[in-house]
Amino acid sequence: MQPQNIFDNEFFFQGYKKLRENPNSANILEEKPAIFSLLPELTGKKVLDLGCGYGENCNLFSIMGANKVVGIDVSSKMLAIANDENSGDNIFYENMCMENIFSINEKFDVVVSSLAIHYVQDFNNLVSNVNSLLNDNGIFVFSQEHPLTTAPKNGASWFKNADGRITHYKLTDYAISGKRTVSWIVDGITKYHRTFSGIINSLIDAGFTIEKMLEPVPTKEILERDTSSAKNLHKPNFLVIRARKK
Amino acid sequence: MQPQNIFDNEFFFQGYKKLRENPNSANILEEKPAIFSLLPELTGKKVLDLGCGYGENCNLFSIMGANKVVGIDVSSKMLAIANDENSGDNIFYENMCMENIFSINEKFDVVVSSLAIHYVQDFNNLVSNVNSLLNDNGIFVFSQEHPLTTAPKNGASWFKNADGRITHYKLTDYAISGKRTVSWIVDGITKYHRTFSGIINSLIDAGFTIEKMLEPVPTKEILERDTSSAKNLHKPNFLVIRARKK
Repeated sequence: MQPQNIFDNEFFFQGYKKLRENPNSANILEEKPAIFSLLPELTGKKVLDLGCGYGENCNLFSIMGANKVVGIDVSSKMLAIANDENSGDNIFYENMCMENIFSINEKFDVVVSSLAIHYVQDFNNLVSNVNSLLNDNGIFVFSQEHPLTTAPKNGASWFKNADGRITHYKLTDYAISGKRTVSWIVDGITKYHRTFSGIINSLIDAGFTIEKMLEPVPTKEILERDTSSAKNLHKPNFLVIRARKK
Repeated sequence: MQPQNIFDNEFFFQGYKKLRENPNSANILEEKPAIFSLLPELTGKKVLDLGCGYGENCNLFSIMGANKVVGIDVSSKMLAIANDENSGDNIFYENMCMENIFSINEKFDVVVSSLAIHYVQDFNNLVSNVNSLLNDNGIFVFSQEHPLTTAPKNGASWFKNADGRITHYKLTDYAISGKRTVSWIVDGITKYHRTFSGIINSLIDAGFTIEKMLEPVPTKEILERDTSSAKNLHKPNFLVIRARKK
């Protein structure tokens, strides 16, 4: 099966680029600090980045002392930017979807994935492949959309009362894992919802020990600066997990 | 600090008794099968039950071959029924709150707790004490109200559309851990909300390895028999976890 490659759609790509350039996006304010806080010491390590996109994280891993960084992404448009803006002697980009990582024939100390895993249909297969790619005691750190975000079949949405104030998050379908078709920049984006227990049990079954789980929320400073972010105390945006190969 | 002892309130106690006698309660149809599915082989084991209530589970642990079962509960009314209906030569009931288990001076192979832990304020302290009470490789299995149930500060509730049909769960305050005062049979019941990551990280920090997590939902048979249970596909009732002492 060919995986979705929406990032090579020009219209989507331009919309996404604009979103990522916003310095006040939840990605930058919430997800990035959380995923970096869970990274082990990278000095001298070999790092694989799944769904590396623009390669910003690959570049940072290299700066943090990684010996070698391999970034894979399904989108050649994303990798063109990665090669242009985030290249380095020890950074290697490869046009590959996450479904095909079984074909990589080297091992890594750390596998990282930022906000890409919710696009992968077969999570069991993915984490089993990640486990195989890790050296003993290797670390897998990943972030994804929060399971409460991916849950609703009609897409994440908030309930507003008569005066337009958000009063609650409209939670539906949480216990029903599987495909979700949602609108984000364009219509027809495919994601996969998984429950907390589904994610945790898959990691354990694949041979991982869970070491830490984060559900980052806006800091006090962000809440004061951007009052609209208070809704994320009702429902966080991201889930971030560190697991160790047993 | 004196813990809440609502189960010794006569009015609450009678209301609760009636609820538990319903053979179609979610406790019996969803929580009980889930927690028992996570138990290890009990033959010859020493088992501690935290918040044992009527002692039904203690009696079952004994029937399943446990060598010795100790059940503690804060409510003397509950233990009077336990002694009356679920006694046994190797079953010992003690009137003790979960906050005081540090005073128990014997070790166990298995610690179980069914739907009681959300009443305990200091989860870190509790799981640290449970870890100390376990033999090496000992197993801790517990169930609690689902974190999406405990989250809303105004109590769990569903949104109904104009024709009275439930359309979604009103999720609020998920990321804000802490005390919740809700109405259940009587007003002013105190519970404590914790996020998934809060629960998991506390267990890991206390020296546990997470082995399995369940969020049971109604079976297909139950969904057909009781159409009102379909709402629990939006938001499950329970969280059940098995952890092993490292």
